[in-house]
Amino acid sequence: MHNDTIVALATPSGSGAIAVIRLSGQEAIAIASKCFKSVSNKVLSKQATHTIHLGHIVDNNRTIDEVLVSVFKDPNSYTGENVVEISCHGSSYIQQEIIQLFLRNGCRMATAGEFTLRAFLNGKLDLSQAEAVADLISSDNEASHQIAMQQMRGGFSSEIAKLREELLNFASLIELELDFAEEDVEFADRTQFKQLIERITFVLKRLIDSFAVGNVIKNGIPVAIVGEPNVGKSTLLNALLNEDRAIVSEIAGTTRDTIEDEISIGGIGFRFIDTAGIRETEDVVESIGIRKTFEKIEQSQVVIYLFEADVISNDSEKSHNVQIEIEKIKNKYPQKPILIIANKIDKLNDIQLAEVNTAIANVLLLSAKTGFGVEQLTNKLLNLINTGALRNNETIVTNSRHYDALLKAFEEVQKVQYGLETGLSGDLLAIDIRQALYHFGEITGEITNDDLLGNIFANFCIGK
Amino acid sequence: MHNDTIVALATPSGSGAIAVIRLSGQEAIAIASKCFKSVSNKVLSKQATHTIHLGHIVDNNRTIDEVLVSVFKDPNSYTGENVVEISCHGSSYIQQEIIQLFLRNGCRMATAGEFTLRAFLNGKLDLSQAEAVADLISSDNEASHQIAMQQMRGGFSSEIAKLREELLNFASLIELELDFAEEDVEFADRTQFKQLIERITFVLKRLIDSFAVGNVIKNGIPVAIVGEPNVGKSTLLNALLNEDRAIVSEIAGTTRDTIEDEISIGGIGFRFIDTAGIRETEDVVESIGIRKTFEKIEQSQVVIYLFEADVISNDSEKSHNVQIEIEKIKNKYPQKPILIIANKIDKLNDIQLAEVNTAIANVLLLSAKTGFGVEQLTNKLLNLINTGALRNNETIVTNSRHYDALLKAFEEVQKVQYGLETGLSGDLLAIDIRQALYHFGEITGEITNDDLLGNIFANFCIGK
Repeated sequence: MHNDTIVALATPSGSGAIAVIRLSGQEAIAIASKCFKSVSNKVLSKQATHTIHLGHIVDNNRTIDEVLVSVFKDPNSYTGENVVEISCHGSSYIQQEIIQLFLRNGCRMATAGEFTLRAFLNGKLDLSQAEAVADLISSDNEASHQIAMQQMRGGFSSEIAKLREELLNFASLIELELDFAEEDVEFADRTQFKQLIERITFVLKRLIDSFAVGNVIKNGIPVAIVGEPNVGKSTLLNALLNEDRAIVSEIAGTTRDTIEDEISIGGIGFRFIDTAGIRETEDVVESIGIRKTFEKIEQSQVVIYLFEADVISNDSEKSHNVQIEIEKIKNKYPQKPILIIANKIDKLNDIQLAEVNTAIANVLLLSAKTGFGVEQLTNKLLNLINTGALRNNETIVTNSRHYDALLKAFEEVQKVQYGLETGLSGDLLAIDIRQALYHFGEITGEITNDDLLGNIFANFCIGK
Repeated sequence: MHNDTIVALATPSGSGAIAVIRLSGQEAIAIASKCFKSVSNKVLSKQATHTIHLGHIVDNNRTIDEVLVSVFKDPNSYTGENVVEISCHGSSYIQQEIIQLFLRNGCRMATAGEFTLRAFLNGKLDLSQAEAVADLISSDNEASHQIAMQQMRGGFSSEIAKLREELLNFASLIELELDFAEEDVEFADRTQFKQLIERITFVLKRLIDSFAVGNVIKNGIPVAIVGEPNVGKSTLLNALLNEDRAIVSEIAGTTRDTIEDEISIGGIGFRFIDTAGIRETEDVVESIGIRKTFEKIEQSQVVIYLFEADVISNDSEKSHNVQIEIEKIKNKYPQKPILIIANKIDKLNDIQLAEVNTAIANVLLLSAKTGFGVEQLTNKLLNLINTGALRNNETIVTNSRHYDALLKAFEEVQKVQYGLETGLSGDLLAIDIRQALYHFGEITGEITNDDLLGNIFANFCIGK
């Protein structure tokens, strides 16, 4: 089934200095040889694994490009098969000409994630590690990167595998008892078994709970910013960006004009959602604008309410509006954390500052312009998430497939626990244990099927 | 000056399966070693050139990524210096973290084209070859690719270098004569010298002439499409695209909605420019729309006039308009090739077809829908360009800097020729020859300066 040779562009599409085209399969080196002329007349198939060779990609007499060819030999490659990587000049035209040439010479276009699928099928990594490869590629902040890296290096799998092995051990003993059913022996020490089940329950609970934070880390924390156009929303976001000394802006010189964007704060991704404010509520009860604002607040985990500090002293109507709006949000979403920010306090004198503090409870004084209060805001945002597990380098579940399997395993383990407490017979106990083992196996890929694999790898990019 | 170590992303920015980060400089391997932990505890500096090593990029105790590191040792690398290429997972976050890590460990961000600049300064390629690298990366069709490839492989330089050498030879002999001025000897055979100058003149003329085609091949041939919105402009372009069995659309599944686009036809890039048509001319003489259409025709090298074939028989007013518009364009631009196309002829019967042929001189009958006439159109478009030099694999000048230098060299060579004919004294002849040599040297980079290099490499992408 998987003995043909696949080819794909491994680097992002578009123009760049170089591009890398990857071949994998039994015939990878042989096919590459047909299209490659080494400058020193080397024969590719005779080269050692992990070596690089300068030469030209040629289509009969036509030279397509001067390239570097890297050779990786089965099983010492990413996929575990023969792999050839062509490092060519980064023109889209050249990339396509080379890929077409390989297609004409016996390769097939790789499907999404097919290189990693082959790595999994050849035992180079387990299923949760393979999934972590995709997470790693899409990671865009420190936290999601750390979790994906840990998972790719097998942290999560090894934790699951360890539990699975211990459980398997007991399962075997209990199944052994069944063979000697007439003699009424107990090979599996029930006290030890109960302790194991308690330990498994504890670990599963922790992993399941970690999904709450893992999920927001993976997808970013949605924050609704409620405030009128000129209260300084984009200045605030740029201030938050600078506070984090964002890598992106340093290297690529990024500037942000849009408010609807993800910003990494303290290594965590926050997705900011701009809203139109809700100040018209006195006139029209359910105008479209307000409904939209409330919809966005609904979707978010945190609300930032932003207003200009000077209105409290200088504009009694606006000041009144601010207070009404804050009350409205609090009443509608009593459970949702709301951070109330008085912006542009650099314009205020001490008396005015005192007035703001008096008028608005728990207000955070801030000047996006001078940076005052920004650090306090980032701390408040970070405190809203329980990042303890992240800091302690514990395993965090970010994948909803894993989460589902863990929930199911947990359910089965609880049945086992109940069975142990009520003295359930060995044969019935064994069924529940097998079910729990099945769900553990789903995570690491010991238990799998084509549909599941298809779903997982379809979300990969082509070339990985 | 150039002994620091530079770093840059070599692959296109954005997410992909993998990304490549490149380091070059004396300390490249040493700096990479500080941040790399081989899985088999290899020491990078002790590895052979052109070898690949699996391991992790680590920042103290934090693992940033699992990577493959390629080692190239001075002078066997692209730049001629020590070079390290890190093949990491293609997440923007990871790319930036790794680059930042190297910056903290003694690298400097590479400027645009700095890797290729170093390759030039270290004698790995001459200036016209270095320029061809940028052309190669931006090449997006067969013709521009072929020319860039030929230039990068030294075809152009070697032609120039050969002429330069022969001329240099004569220059030396004539300068030698000056040392023996009192004895009135002629070391340089004037007849042979005249023949050489004639040969050089011939080659220079050919190269200078080739720029006419080289320039359009490099930049694409601008074609204005004049026609109303519903006459089938985008259907026609898609038909042209399919005729060429475009590689892009096969691999990436590209579909084109926009008319303003470059399409490769027979390996040559054509830039199609949409215009609004000029039919309102009877009412308003100089409306903005018409002015714009004429501006676009002005910029183009070819005009395609497209109309619906059935209006000739069925709509006398529109039919009249078509004829007036064609006349207008012909009168305003008598020198510009105009292709008149009656589209949608699949709707017409034989009598109607005859009417179209009678009414419009030199009309090309076409159905973008069925593909009828499309091949004839592509042939007509290709015939408008003199691609003889391209087919014969002759050197074609595409770079306006080279063109300028060739024109200047030509001027000097003509002076030399005139001097030879009029028996100009050896010392004055020598000055003209030196000037010609100077301009030859400008092309290959034997004669250069910082400003010139700065201008050339500023147009490169960073990472090349």
